[in-house]
Amino acid sequence: MDSIKLGIIGFGTIGSSVAKILQQNGEQISQRLGANLQLLKVADLDITTDRGITFAPGILTTQAEEVLDSPEIDVVIELMGGYEPARTFVLKAMARGKHVVTANKALLALHGDELFSSAEKAGVALLFEAAVGGAIPIIRAIKESFVANKIQEIEGIVNGTANYILTKMSDEGLPFDQVLKEAQAKGFAEADPTFDIEGIDSAHKIAVLTRLAYGTSVKFDNIYIQGISSIRQEDIECAQQFGYRIKLLAISKFDGTSIDIRVHPAMVPQEKPIANVNGVLNAVLVRDDCMEENILVGHGAGGFPTGSAVIGDVVDIARDILAGCKGRVPPQSYPGNALKDIPLKNIHEIEGEYFLRFVVQDQTGVLSRISGILGQHQISIRTMIQPERGTEGGEVTLVVMTHQALENNIQKALLEIDALDIVSEKTVLIRVEK
Amino acid sequence: MDSIKLGIIGFGTIGSSVAKILQQNGEQISQRLGANLQLLKVADLDITTDRGITFAPGILTTQAEEVLDSPEIDVVIELMGGYEPARTFVLKAMARGKHVVTANKALLALHGDELFSSAEKAGVALLFEAAVGGAIPIIRAIKESFVANKIQEIEGIVNGTANYILTKMSDEGLPFDQVLKEAQAKGFAEADPTFDIEGIDSAHKIAVLTRLAYGTSVKFDNIYIQGISSIRQEDIECAQQFGYRIKLLAISKFDGTSIDIRVHPAMVPQEKPIANVNGVLNAVLVRDDCMEENILVGHGAGGFPTGSAVIGDVVDIARDILAGCKGRVPPQSYPGNALKDIPLKNIHEIEGEYFLRFVVQDQTGVLSRISGILGQHQISIRTMIQPERGTEGGEVTLVVMTHQALENNIQKALLEIDALDIVSEKTVLIRVEK
Repeated sequence: MDSIKLGIIGFGTIGSSVAKILQQNGEQISQRLGANLQLLKVADLDITTDRGITFAPGILTTQAEEVLDSPEIDVVIELMGGYEPARTFVLKAMARGKHVVTANKALLALHGDELFSSAEKAGVALLFEAAVGGAIPIIRAIKESFVANKIQEIEGIVNGTANYILTKMSDEGLPFDQVLKEAQAKGFAEADPTFDIEGIDSAHKIAVLTRLAYGTSVKFDNIYIQGISSIRQEDIECAQQFGYRIKLLAISKFDGTSIDIRVHPAMVPQEKPIANVNGVLNAVLVRDDCMEENILVGHGAGGFPTGSAVIGDVVDIARDILAGCKGRVPPQSYPGNALKDIPLKNIHEIEGEYFLRFVVQDQTGVLSRISGILGQHQISIRTMIQPERGTEGGEVTLVVMTHQALENNIQKALLEIDALDIVSEKTVLIRVEK
Repeated sequence: MDSIKLGIIGFGTIGSSVAKILQQNGEQISQRLGANLQLLKVADLDITTDRGITFAPGILTTQAEEVLDSPEIDVVIELMGGYEPARTFVLKAMARGKHVVTANKALLALHGDELFSSAEKAGVALLFEAAVGGAIPIIRAIKESFVANKIQEIEGIVNGTANYILTKMSDEGLPFDQVLKEAQAKGFAEADPTFDIEGIDSAHKIAVLTRLAYGTSVKFDNIYIQGISSIRQEDIECAQQFGYRIKLLAISKFDGTSIDIRVHPAMVPQEKPIANVNGVLNAVLVRDDCMEENILVGHGAGGFPTGSAVIGDVVDIARDILAGCKGRVPPQSYPGNALKDIPLKNIHEIEGEYFLRFVVQDQTGVLSRISGILGQHQISIRTMIQPERGTEGGEVTLVVMTHQALENNIQKALLEIDALDIVSEKTVLIRVEK
């Protein structure tokens, strides 16, 4: 039986899971593929930590170059994460004619242009199903299944840590800080959770999906990103009162002219399927001109879900090698020469409905001053509630849901309102996605 | 630019939608594929009905042989449905070296062995993404994405008509017959709805998915099938009281030894995502040893959703042709020589929880006689409710939810119970899926 030879760079949770799945399910993989997947090298600076798997001598190494230099290795699996040296390693592997599988969304979001054009030039595969949504087969769906479809919108819950925190806050009424600490203790959040809770990881993923869906390169710095660290229990409770759940959404909409791409917490109507994707689960919704909505739900992180997606990609490459073909599917869904330059919408240009939570002095006339300013900026109020009466002369919360309004007008109005002496805290804004 | 040549047999809703999508989105498809998809022939006995699309002269024909005989056509798209002459046409096309794309689940479920071995022998592709779940990319996911995963369970809502009827009955409190008539008027149910409401269509689909997931051929006649026509509004209401929704599920579980495959209405806990897949939407859940659950939700029927899945398959084949490769992915996920003979479990062997609705005489001692018989068959009662008091001396409904029990014991107990003089109607049994 033929054998396709693999090298892994990065022996953490995902790397060790890939090796374990290859051992445990190797027979099935060989049956389906008609060839063996053989792991020749596993490189990591740390090869002493027990990862629950043992290898024959000579496989584990601290030298990534041993993977890159091996003339036998067909596929390099990059699972170290981060920008460097991952970028250099991936470029070197491709320049040496090796196919690459990676789960590194940060790398693809920031250095996609360079990496994809290098892959095309070298005539090698660069696959990355595991980079978005873990085991959810969204990358292959966009590249291969929805190829006839004009995608109009992608909406994703693509960060399990943030979704876990928001779910816990919603279901158990706990404050953000406490839930974050619990998540860290359980291993659902990293010691430095910035990328997850501040929306950066979600932005990496929506940048990757946007490239595939519309055939365009997205300048990462131009993506509007807002995380969940400012979400308070009061916001969650108000959302529930209004029939919504708060989710950290990664959104990318294409109207044929420009792309509206952004990451922020959003109010999602409770009856929508995506509102019920809870805990560490991820979901990606795709809307297009042919099939209306498709929603894919699954585990977006974790060694085995992500590891199995990595092996799915490896098998894809192995099938090309065994069938003697190259370049069947363009690495970035569109061939490099068919990429389009599509402008991104500024967040100020979008229109939507808004949830606004004001903290104001408990005085007469407050409501009329606030609603007056909103009215001056063409913002009309759909619903207003005052969740609780404050102590006399103290502070009260005032919650407003608007009708459709222009973000630019909302921002201008909030600048004016937040400057009022009767307003005690910066107003919280949460966008509504219907 | 290269051109891949297509012929369609069957110019109904899906066939005309494929042609429309090729016209409307042809430019995008060409960009992504690097070649044109050119529709050379469209065959149907009825070519006079206006399908909202016009062709150049010579394309429409009443002779399927014109598609099969054309030396130019690379891919034959079979969209006529039914067993014959679809089977003969597909076999002829493959014997002549043409690749085939079909949406015909009935054909694949009944004649899969013959068709797949013919495809392997002829070295052609036989793709069928549109056969299950319309635009939901479940076939490609199982064949290509979950290749490293040992699938343990598939659970699907794969018939939009049945799901629409159950949803309407649940949400609007309407009786089965009325909802069916409305569905027929709206085009959501066929004039003869037997295949949809009696579970046969769902069984076709779960037979196809089972073959792909476990690498085995399923004898269709051995699948346990129960439809939704016996579901009454009372069952729906009881389900809601107990915190469940009733869904027509297609289930396939593999424990490593035998396959538990069946189609029947089931009580699904309200908080499960699949319980909230409503209306004409379909969903397929896959559980395996690596990724826990993955759920794919989308439109399972309709011209454009299904048509876009057909074109996704055509593009897959076109990519093989353009890259000069054959047989990359085995048509039935496992190569023919790796298929296993896996026995099917008899429905009597399964264990689960059960919802039982008895219609009994309103007499003292009734409950003790029924619970006595259940107890004699090792069936213990979790909850019992009597939804309404009957008129004196009349009939009353008695609803029981059991603990885990063996189906065989349940069936024996019901035989005894239904023979009692105090029991007025055949007892309704609905399985609970957790």
